[in-house]
Amino acid sequence: MGGYFGTALMVDLAERTVEESLLPGEWYRDYIGGEGIGVRLLLDLVDPEADLLAPDQPLIFTTGSLTGTAAPTSGRCAVVFRSPLTGTLGAANAGGHFAPALKRAGYDVLVVTGRAETPVILVVDDDGVDFLDAEETWGKGINATEDWARSQLEGTGWQIASIGPAGEKGVLFSNIVTDRHRAFGRGGAGALMGSKNLKAIAVRGTAELPVADPEGLKEAAKAAREELFNEAFVRDEMKPYGTPSFYDAMSGLGILPTRNWQRDSFPESIPTLGYAAYHETLEVKPYACFGCPIACGRHTKIKSGKWAGMEGGGPEYETVAAFGSKCEVLDLNAVAAANHLANDLGLDVISAGQVIATAMEWNEKGILSKEQLGGLDLSFGNGEAVVEAVRLIANREGIGDLLAEGSARAAEKLGPEAEAAVMAVKGMEMAADGVRASKGEIITHAVSPRGADHLRPYASTIDAFGYREPELGIAPDAAISITEDGNKGWVKPLMANAMIPNLLGTCLFTNITLAIKPSTWANLHSKALGREMDKDELLLAAERVMNLERMVNATFGFDGSDDTLPERFLKEPGTDGPGTGQVVDLKPALESFYEAMGWEPEEGLPSVETLTRLGLDWMLYGCD
Amino acid sequence: MGGYFGTALMVDLAERTVEESLLPGEWYRDYIGGEGIGVRLLLDLVDPEADLLAPDQPLIFTTGSLTGTAAPTSGRCAVVFRSPLTGTLGAANAGGHFAPALKRAGYDVLVVTGRAETPVILVVDDDGVDFLDAEETWGKGINATEDWARSQLEGTGWQIASIGPAGEKGVLFSNIVTDRHRAFGRGGAGALMGSKNLKAIAVRGTAELPVADPEGLKEAAKAAREELFNEAFVRDEMKPYGTPSFYDAMSGLGILPTRNWQRDSFPESIPTLGYAAYHETLEVKPYACFGCPIACGRHTKIKSGKWAGMEGGGPEYETVAAFGSKCEVLDLNAVAAANHLANDLGLDVISAGQVIATAMEWNEKGILSKEQLGGLDLSFGNGEAVVEAVRLIANREGIGDLLAEGSARAAEKLGPEAEAAVMAVKGMEMAADGVRASKGEIITHAVSPRGADHLRPYASTIDAFGYREPELGIAPDAAISITEDGNKGWVKPLMANAMIPNLLGTCLFTNITLAIKPSTWANLHSKALGREMDKDELLLAAERVMNLERMVNATFGFDGSDDTLPERFLKEPGTDGPGTGQVVDLKPALESFYEAMGWEPEEGLPSVETLTRLGLDWMLYGCD
Repeated sequence: MGGYFGTALMVDLAERTVEESLLPGEWYRDYIGGEGIGVRLLLDLVDPEADLLAPDQPLIFTTGSLTGTAAPTSGRCAVVFRSPLTGTLGAANAGGHFAPALKRAGYDVLVVTGRAETPVILVVDDDGVDFLDAEETWGKGINATEDWARSQLEGTGWQIASIGPAGEKGVLFSNIVTDRHRAFGRGGAGALMGSKNLKAIAVRGTAELPVADPEGLKEAAKAAREELFNEAFVRDEMKPYGTPSFYDAMSGLGILPTRNWQRDSFPESIPTLGYAAYHETLEVKPYACFGCPIACGRHTKIKSGKWAGMEGGGPEYETVAAFGSKCEVLDLNAVAAANHLANDLGLDVISAGQVIATAMEWNEKGILSKEQLGGLDLSFGNGEAVVEAVRLIANREGIGDLLAEGSARAAEKLGPEAEAAVMAVKGMEMAADGVRASKGEIITHAVSPRGADHLRPYASTIDAFGYREPELGIAPDAAISITEDGNKGWVKPLMANAMIPNLLGTCLFTNITLAIKPSTWANLHSKALGREMDKDELLLAAERVMNLERMVNATFGFDGSDDTLPERFLKEPGTDGPGTGQVVDLKPALESFYEAMGWEPEEGLPSVETLTRLGLDWMLYGCD
Repeated sequence: MGGYFGTALMVDLAERTVEESLLPGEWYRDYIGGEGIGVRLLLDLVDPEADLLAPDQPLIFTTGSLTGTAAPTSGRCAVVFRSPLTGTLGAANAGGHFAPALKRAGYDVLVVTGRAETPVILVVDDDGVDFLDAEETWGKGINATEDWARSQLEGTGWQIASIGPAGEKGVLFSNIVTDRHRAFGRGGAGALMGSKNLKAIAVRGTAELPVADPEGLKEAAKAAREELFNEAFVRDEMKPYGTPSFYDAMSGLGILPTRNWQRDSFPESIPTLGYAAYHETLEVKPYACFGCPIACGRHTKIKSGKWAGMEGGGPEYETVAAFGSKCEVLDLNAVAAANHLANDLGLDVISAGQVIATAMEWNEKGILSKEQLGGLDLSFGNGEAVVEAVRLIANREGIGDLLAEGSARAAEKLGPEAEAAVMAVKGMEMAADGVRASKGEIITHAVSPRGADHLRPYASTIDAFGYREPELGIAPDAAISITEDGNKGWVKPLMANAMIPNLLGTCLFTNITLAIKPSTWANLHSKALGREMDKDELLLAAERVMNLERMVNATFGFDGSDDTLPERFLKEPGTDGPGTGQVVDLKPALESFYEAMGWEPEEGLPSVETLTRLGLDWMLYGCD
């Protein structure tokens, strides 16, 4: 017998109690694993009325059904929490080697609650759980923390996820970083971890992971790798160049945010920020997460100038845009320095760059006083100021203390005139994927459960490269005609497709490229667990989790009225590329999307019929 | 929002800790409530390797989705546990007023684990939980215990469920009794409660129970009551005469076990044990459980003879057969005395009577020595000896100590020649529903998850009164021809139908009579919760719970090889009535039933396809 119950390690830092808890098999049937299980557990553990950084707020790390197996990209870990930045569901996802280590230590899920009296490192091993005093490393960056932790721990093979000074100081877009530069990036998980006085989690596991059909899994994994490299985007771009290769295309397509989204392309930056320049200016090495044949990660070192010698993971495309085009900075060395610094201090580079770009516009408009800026010249184009702003924010020094609250809260403090420059949805800063010329991004940014979101799905890549995946049942004309009111034809199935890796513990880059088919993922899952699942069941589970997340956000007070975009897109016509002269017509786009999802047109929440169809209607009815 | 999570009160008697735990909404969706939730929770809480009376064995009381509402018969409570008598799933069910009180106190489920150092009464109130020292009432019967507890507790409205000396002393077929004579009867829940030093549970709740659609529920309840009284069996038998009215019919149909099942009818007892005699010999008053318009319960007082003045609930039909026909006792006063004594001492009357009948056959065959009998004349027909045997068993005195182990274990101690007189399945004594002339009982007794079982469904009533319920989709010819290999046509849907009240917290007597339709129950459930459910969904949930129970028993080591009947039925031809000359042909009956259930023909367990169809396949696959 046995039963496919996941084992959750429940750690209360205040009491230093440790408990193992079996999760219901029904959850694994309905929500598959990874983020799905994390969100379901969050619903049980979170108190919607509690302060966003209250000690009891849970921080939930989850592995997926394929974690640590031979399936390609099976090294991803999800962290699920209530975001201190947005108040929405928080869900972030990192590669590296953390998730396989956790699973090998015997845990599918790790839940941390409570606030330690003094800084600690949580140590999870095959043999049990320990707490390591971390006073000495408090205040240190990610790299030094990993080094220090390894020096204190016996033996090798430790995987470490830690926070930097930004997380310690409650910067609301601080992150958790593992393997030095793989970030659980968005939504402020670092601040939540810091509020618990938890400096790092060190995990080591040596158990063999059971696979129901090892031979079948091997074959399925081979097929998956073949699908991956049959896709030109993976083979010819992602693998040899990584995400920085997107930059030139995004600018050409008119979806590269520039000068805090006042422009949608930045052709004059291609000679210094484009992917050819990237490989000339920086010393670049590829990096692979656990089990990944793509190795899209770039490790770079600055070769010259005042930041010469600084090195680390990235900058990825998003970071080049965040510290580059958004801030109109042409100096890739400054971009790379800001990136390396932000990674080490534990800042989400996407929010950090966007916050700085917004602050530059405030500065331009005289909304920030000289006193507030304290001598910092936050002008568009000033790369040195970007690097300094990163440092100030992470340490909550000077103007950094205000900006550490995120652009939406900072604007509230600055007054109504500050609002126009805030490029955020539900308080979450937008990433670097334009919406005027990428109609899919209109929907995904407006409706994503964690606020402005470029990854669920990465719609601009679909706009850019066209629709290819026949298994999703999208009508051919829907693929051709991507208009505001045509979204119902393709956004929903692509969103479900993009949810798959978050459930299996694999990488979105296999899916936003549409390289690995849903049926292939379903087959891998089946072989790993010995439980037959077909693509329809997997996609239905993904849809179920999408709706569960919508409902969890509803318990936090969010509904369709929060599905909006920054005013700039709704009122200011685009000035560059295909979006020139256009504003976003959000209403019909939302209406068609809600209809496709089976959400009520007014409140934007799943209808009773939809919840019933997905087996989630229990959320509506209470005996309590 | 809210979410339909049940609230479980988790009490550890050893630590005296009390915790409230929310149960997953998915469980209430999949298993509805009552026994379904109890079994699912048991799966989580039970250690299949632990001793059957180990302190950590959970004792789980559950209410149903209709408990305490205006729905007719909404006062039933289920207790779920692992049976110390059989090692199988234990599930017993009592009326009275206990369940509504528990629910009004704010709890859908009560779980007791641990062993108190000294005898206690667990007190559950709106205001919280308390522990009352029970040394003074240890050793007392049910009636005295209820009186004593009420004298100690402030205010009125307390509902009490307690054990008698039998439970204290670990008689393996001791019960838990509430409202003086409503018994959680079968499987030895009393021994489990006694092993925890838990003398009684006192519950009082005053909260209004929320109903989603009170007006709709009222109408649906009215329709249900009309259906109930449109059924002649309810209107003309159950209500005016209660279950003792079955006796004459059972004898006439050749399914009345007589002389330890050596005979199947007992016509010569009709003048003294038949239902006309019952009303002449005893002083009889009707009794109604919470919300019950039938009031099938009988309260009786012995009018004359040596037991004159003894009174209490029953004897019901089963008890008249257990202490009467099975023991060939013709004296109804002796039957009533044994009944009242067994109820007060906390013995399951069905097992008690069957154990005594078996012992009488052992005595007849010289298997019990004079020394073992200690002067007790355990001869068929000796009513005084039956009453005395009840007392000895409950107190584990003399021969009672051996018989307290149940007939199967006692036979093991007595040697192989004792086996033939044991009338039990999976160690559970048979009730009084013959199988030679009631083919449905062949299956239900052989396959029931809790051992020999006359209630899932009460197949002999179907045999006796014919098939009537068109909503169950049974083929007309299946209803007519009830043969061993025809069972696949009707036993499964009738079993699912009989499971419905165990999930809703209502009474089986509305269902074994097929009076209230599945669609009416589904409508009542829908109106109570505001969640639409149709009869197909309800019947599917019932089937899911049946399979869940089968799988839980599989974790306890049971499979199809345990689906058997006492040798007597397989080898000795019947001598009375329609079963004359017949032996039971079990194999084809089981084969056809397994096929109808979607169970593997060899091992008798649900196939992967069946588990998948019911959403239970997670039980098969493990990451653990």
